[in-house]
Amino acid sequence: MPKYLMTIKYDGTAYHGWQVQKNAITVQQCVQDALESFLGFRPDVTGCSRTDSGVHAKEYCFHFESSANISEQGYVKAINTKLPDDISASDCKKVNDDFHARYSVKTKRYDYLFFDGETRNPFYSKYSWHIDKKLDEELLDKAAKEFIGKYDFSGFCSTGSSVEDTVREVFSASVKRQGDLVIFSIEADGFLYNMVRIIAGTLYFVAIGKIDINDIKDIILSKNRNKAGITAPPQGLFLSKVNY
Amino acid sequence: MPKYLMTIKYDGTAYHGWQVQKNAITVQQCVQDALESFLGFRPDVTGCSRTDSGVHAKEYCFHFESSANISEQGYVKAINTKLPDDISASDCKKVNDDFHARYSVKTKRYDYLFFDGETRNPFYSKYSWHIDKKLDEELLDKAAKEFIGKYDFSGFCSTGSSVEDTVREVFSASVKRQGDLVIFSIEADGFLYNMVRIIAGTLYFVAIGKIDINDIKDIILSKNRNKAGITAPPQGLFLSKVNY
Repeated sequence: MPKYLMTIKYDGTAYHGWQVQKNAITVQQCVQDALESFLGFRPDVTGCSRTDSGVHAKEYCFHFESSANISEQGYVKAINTKLPDDISASDCKKVNDDFHARYSVKTKRYDYLFFDGETRNPFYSKYSWHIDKKLDEELLDKAAKEFIGKYDFSGFCSTGSSVEDTVREVFSASVKRQGDLVIFSIEADGFLYNMVRIIAGTLYFVAIGKIDINDIKDIILSKNRNKAGITAPPQGLFLSKVNY
Repeated sequence: MPKYLMTIKYDGTAYHGWQVQKNAITVQQCVQDALESFLGFRPDVTGCSRTDSGVHAKEYCFHFESSANISEQGYVKAINTKLPDDISASDCKKVNDDFHARYSVKTKRYDYLFFDGETRNPFYSKYSWHIDKKLDEELLDKAAKEFIGKYDFSGFCSTGSSVEDTVREVFSASVKRQGDLVIFSIEADGFLYNMVRIIAGTLYFVAIGKIDINDIKDIILSKNRNKAGITAPPQGLFLSKVNY
């Protein structure tokens, strides 16, 4: 059957992540519901990664198979009439049989948003982590760059993960300011469970003086979760780019 | 009793506007609940304007009276611990007895956001009006400027309003693009019921060729609601600035 790669965006506030779960609404389930409503059958959909409850995606990819007589852009239009307002498709293209939304990924980029405005901002509360002190984005940029390289990141992985190979290569990592938002961006060939949120929490520890920037390399090499920072809350995290 | 002017922001998605109503949650009620929780009494709060269901505010002002021994910034901090995530206070200051949050307003500015991206964007759906065709922001800027001046705007007022004086002076009106957002901004000494949304709907009619830019002045002078455009949906509207 022809295979398609679809790209969507979603506001994860209302969802328990991507992956289908019992007794919780997930993005995968909404996507399957929407496809089923015009295909007449319920296709399997395979996502590019799991995402946690409350995490957002500016670009998320999944593949599915269908022999329906619908064009690539036809799929985008059809699914957008069926998806809820907080999920939308932006692209769809035919791919080869051996393409896999998860295993064919070369790199992914995540952005983590800190908000350091003096008072809460209702327009950012679902899309950032509000920090009560002004952040030094230049210091955090230097700290972020310590994560560039190929390392065993098992100290930056929440327990409960069953991954065997914990080596990942980070190609770029940076922090920049946009008004009261401080944006941490990181691109790698893959990420361990909660890795971006733990790195974001480590940057926060650098910001409040609980971790020294010169100790970051040792913390990575220690492979000890307890030496890294806290796991930053989910609502600041965006999957922003998936490269195949 | 000492009188205070408080400035808040709110995401109006979940609210039936500012004004207290039976059987519907409003911003005014949440603000009163929050104040009551630490003042120990329920103060009257008087807002700078009514706002409709689903309309947002980057800056909304109200006054209240209290003889509690709390500093201006103390009020901001205290209320922010009590308000829900989609409402926050940004400022509070003592004002004179004769100050009135509504009648002392010199000008207000509203912004109306159109989104003309090719596909829906879940991050903008609650904060803009999605238009299915690319907008010409230069044309709309010219159209907006036709509204500058002192006119009887009764053709740009929804029925159900009981205002007697329908003359308002518009000091500035403009349209600019930011990526896929097209932002209409308008500042006036006051606005009739739904006036900004009807002007926004009229700009939309200009965009789709249903109203000619050269006819706008005549439409204003006609004072005929039926000649203006549709009432644009609420979620694109932001009260952005209140000047006293």
